[in-house]
Amino acid sequence: MKKAIALVSGGLDSCVTAAIAEQKYQLALLHINYGQRTETKELEAFHKIADFYKVKERLVCNLKWLKEIGGSSLTDEKMEIPEQIVNRKSLTANCIPTTYVPFRNANFLCIAVSWAEVIKASKVFIGAVASDAPEYPDTRKNFFTIFNKLVKYATVPVEVETPIVGLKKYEVVKLGMKLGAPLHLTWSCYKSNKTACGKCASCVRRAEAFEKARAVDKLKSQRSKIKTTTQKLKLY
Amino acid sequence: MKKAIALVSGGLDSCVTAAIAEQKYQLALLHINYGQRTETKELEAFHKIADFYKVKERLVCNLKWLKEIGGSSLTDEKMEIPEQIVNRKSLTANCIPTTYVPFRNANFLCIAVSWAEVIKASKVFIGAVASDAPEYPDTRKNFFTIFNKLVKYATVPVEVETPIVGLKKYEVVKLGMKLGAPLHLTWSCYKSNKTACGKCASCVRRAEAFEKARAVDKLKSQRSKIKTTTQKLKLY
Repeated sequence: MKKAIALVSGGLDSCVTAAIAEQKYQLALLHINYGQRTETKELEAFHKIADFYKVKERLVCNLKWLKEIGGSSLTDEKMEIPEQIVNRKSLTANCIPTTYVPFRNANFLCIAVSWAEVIKASKVFIGAVASDAPEYPDTRKNFFTIFNKLVKYATVPVEVETPIVGLKKYEVVKLGMKLGAPLHLTWSCYKSNKTACGKCASCVRRAEAFEKARAVDKLKSQRSKIKTTTQKLKLY
Repeated sequence: MKKAIALVSGGLDSCVTAAIAEQKYQLALLHINYGQRTETKELEAFHKIADFYKVKERLVCNLKWLKEIGGSSLTDEKMEIPEQIVNRKSLTANCIPTTYVPFRNANFLCIAVSWAEVIKASKVFIGAVASDAPEYPDTRKNFFTIFNKLVKYATVPVEVETPIVGLKKYEVVKLGMKLGAPLHLTWSCYKSNKTACGKCASCVRRAEAFEKARAVDKLKSQRSKIKTTTQKLKLY
């Protein structure tokens, strides 16, 4: 069985992506801490997902410098995390949300490719969803197409796969349910409380996705709050 | 004055590259530790070079995971460092020298681009020399051409420059002398002793380059040994 590396943040999208990769490949899982506010929660979720799939090959990298350079509300605690991504105040002058982390996906993929060269993995799976963050340049299909041209310069044949890049969030949930992915083990909230806040853009998107997929989210969270919010934002 | 980030390992090539960038740009210097054997010596050289150019903006990143994944004699102390690059025994099955670090330059450049997005630098200078390591896929001109296509997805206009990629090593030395680059502050040796070993591939290349450039290397090293080696390897 050929090997594939899946980048697993601990969130919904990467969990479903790992579930897809697991159908055809022996999994090796990569997690990256970069000083994001939810570092601990995400790492916890990563190991739970890896345990679920009985994955032995795990790599956890610390990119402290990404927090050090700042420039993102995900890593800089002085910056506000936008309550809703649709709130235009949360966008910078270039209409990039403040939650964008500079050139993050390129960095993450390069790490995966380095590891792929050593463990001889032929694929790198990343759970980018273009519709999720249309303003992020590094979640667009073309970004990955160009990245795959760069990967030709690796010393082993390796290719980046983005199996859910074209899906809507609720379709990701549906697919995850179909594949039996452990969605209840994932962490989506932009904050790092005991339970999901139910108010941040990510919580709202998650709740809406489950609602639209007619699925029940088994993750413990402040669900009543989320329901209210999603009802208000029905058109999102 | 526009800003440029120069990747400075502490070696000869990156020092000359910084000297080139300094002609037209306000310098910001980036150094990366990745568990290479010469980490301490290189970091020391980096700060000396940065002091020489009075650079305030410095970023030092630690990529411990590059050592953790291994696969290179520069980071894995169980692997032998080849005495000379021309020794075919030091090449892997694909004829890649064991000193190759998997997808290293792509990782380094991504870090530089992330930083460039935050500090609004318009250029990233890297001192790759293609003739220096022709077997390394990530020192070839085309690699950088493709990388610049990827960089179009950054949120600021930034471009990677490789001003010495086409030069021979002795031409790098000549150019460095012409620009008054502090070559005596650099560290080239693959080992981490008090003085350069004079025997490893990198020391040999350095000595030959100074000899061919008819220049005197003011770096303290076991020079007599190097001389002998270079005389033996005159055709290299």
